[in-house]
Amino acid sequence: MSDERIWTAGLCVIGDEILSGRTQDKNVAQIGLWLNLQGIRLAEVRVVADREEAIVEAVNQLRARNDYLFTTGGIGPTHDDITVDAIAAALGVGVVIHPRARAALEAYYATRGGLTDARLRMARVPDGADLIENRTSGAPGIRVGNIFIMAGVPAITAGMLDALTGTIEGGRPLLSHVVGCWVAESEIADMLGATERAHPGCQIGSYPFFREGRTGANFVIRSTDEAALAACADALSAALAALGRDPVDGGI
Amino acid sequence: MSDERIWTAGLCVIGDEILSGRTQDKNVAQIGLWLNLQGIRLAEVRVVADREEAIVEAVNQLRARNDYLFTTGGIGPTHDDITVDAIAAALGVGVVIHPRARAALEAYYATRGGLTDARLRMARVPDGADLIENRTSGAPGIRVGNIFIMAGVPAITAGMLDALTGTIEGGRPLLSHVVGCWVAESEIADMLGATERAHPGCQIGSYPFFREGRTGANFVIRSTDEAALAACADALSAALAALGRDPVDGGI
Repeated sequence: MSDERIWTAGLCVIGDEILSGRTQDKNVAQIGLWLNLQGIRLAEVRVVADREEAIVEAVNQLRARNDYLFTTGGIGPTHDDITVDAIAAALGVGVVIHPRARAALEAYYATRGGLTDARLRMARVPDGADLIENRTSGAPGIRVGNIFIMAGVPAITAGMLDALTGTIEGGRPLLSHVVGCWVAESEIADMLGATERAHPGCQIGSYPFFREGRTGANFVIRSTDEAALAACADALSAALAALGRDPVDGGI
Repeated sequence: MSDERIWTAGLCVIGDEILSGRTQDKNVAQIGLWLNLQGIRLAEVRVVADREEAIVEAVNQLRARNDYLFTTGGIGPTHDDITVDAIAAALGVGVVIHPRARAALEAYYATRGGLTDARLRMARVPDGADLIENRTSGAPGIRVGNIFIMAGVPAITAGMLDALTGTIEGGRPLLSHVVGCWVAESEIADMLGATERAHPGCQIGSYPFFREGRTGANFVIRSTDEAALAACADALSAALAALGRDPVDGGI
C-alpha cells in the first residue's frame, strides 16, 4: 500500500476573469474529478493573471514537481491569449504553426468566413508539440512534454478531456465513500481522528452542513484500497451508531 | 496613472475536497469580487492539499509578495483542520488559545452541549493574532500580520468579509465595463488589440460565447480611471458599429 506510486498533476488556471471574480471557475472541479478517474491526483492548483512572467513561473514550478501539468485558458485568437507564447518561453523553445492545427482551422472556418491571420494564431504551438482533439470548435488543445494546454471554456475543455481519456498513465484511482450523519463534527472530533489512525491508507475529511434546521456532517473517506475503505467506513458508521447518531438517509 | 500604487492580495484555498473535485469552490470568486471593492487586486490563487508543508510553502510565498494574504478552509474542530498550526509554523511562532475566541465559543456552545476540548481547538491562533468576527457560527476568523484566515464554508466566509469591509487599506478599485456584441472574437482580434493599445491604463479581455444559435463575445474593459474606461468603451462600441456588428441587447 504505502509503496504504491502516486501519480500527480498540477493545474494552472490562466485568466484575469477568474481572479476578478467575474467568472466562476469550473475547470478545477471538472479536471480534478476527471484526473481521479485516470488514477492521477490533482496535487495543486494555481490561478494566475494573463501575464507572461506569472504563467512562466507557475508552469515551471508545477511541471517540475508533478507527473503532469494541465493549463486552462488563454488559447484563443485575441491579444489577451498569451498561453502558448508563455509556455514556449517557459520551455525555452520557439513557437511554430502546427500543420494539422492549420488544416483543422481551415476546415472549420471554410464555411465561417475563412482562415484569417487572427484565427491562424490558434494553430500556433510550442515547437515539438502534439495536438489534443477539440470536438466542439476549431482550435485544438496542445500537448508538449508533460504539459496539456486546454481551453478556458469548460464545455470545450470537457471535450478535450474526453479525447484524452485512457491515454495518460496513472495509478489506482483514489476511491471515496461518504458517511453522512446528523451530528456536529465538534462532538465526535476525537473519535474521527482515532478512526483515521486505526485505518492506515485511509484519510477522513469532515465537511459540516446545516439544513432542515439541523446540524450534520459528511465524512468523506478516501483510499486507493477498496477493502481498507470499506472497513474504515463500517467502523465509522458503527461508532456513530454506538453514539446514538442518525445516519443521513439517502447519503449526501 | 501608471505611478498609482496597486494593492494586491494572494489567496490560498486549503482543502483536499476542492482538489478532488467533490466540492465546487466559491471562495475565489467571492473574495476576488470583494477585494476589488476594497481597491485590492487578487493577484494569484493557490489551491493546496491538507498537508502542512504544502500550506507553509504557499503561505510564505504569497504573503511575501502581496500586500495581503487570505486563506480559506481548515479552521474547524477536526483532525483534518491544520491551517492554524501550518500558518504558525510558516511564521515561526507558537499556537496559543485566544481568550476572546474562547469566550465567544463558550457563549456559542453554552446552549449546544458546552465547550469540549475539540471545540476549544477553534480558539487556537498563531501567537500575536487578532480575531475576525464570525456572525454566523461560533468560531472566529483570524488576522495575523498581513494574513487573514477565513472559513471554508462560503456563507461563513461571506460574514467574515462583511466584518472586514472598509478596514483594510487599498487603492482605487479596478472599474470594469462590459461591451457585448454578436461577433466572433477572431473576426475583430486586430481591432481589439489596437483599441487596447490606443487606451493606456485600460485592459480588454475577450470572452466568447455561443447562445441563441449565434456566436458572440463579451469584451470586458478594466481600468482604475473612470474617464479612460468610458473613452475605451466608447471607442470599442463605435468600432464594432462601424463594422456593422450588433450590440447584445441588455448587455451580458
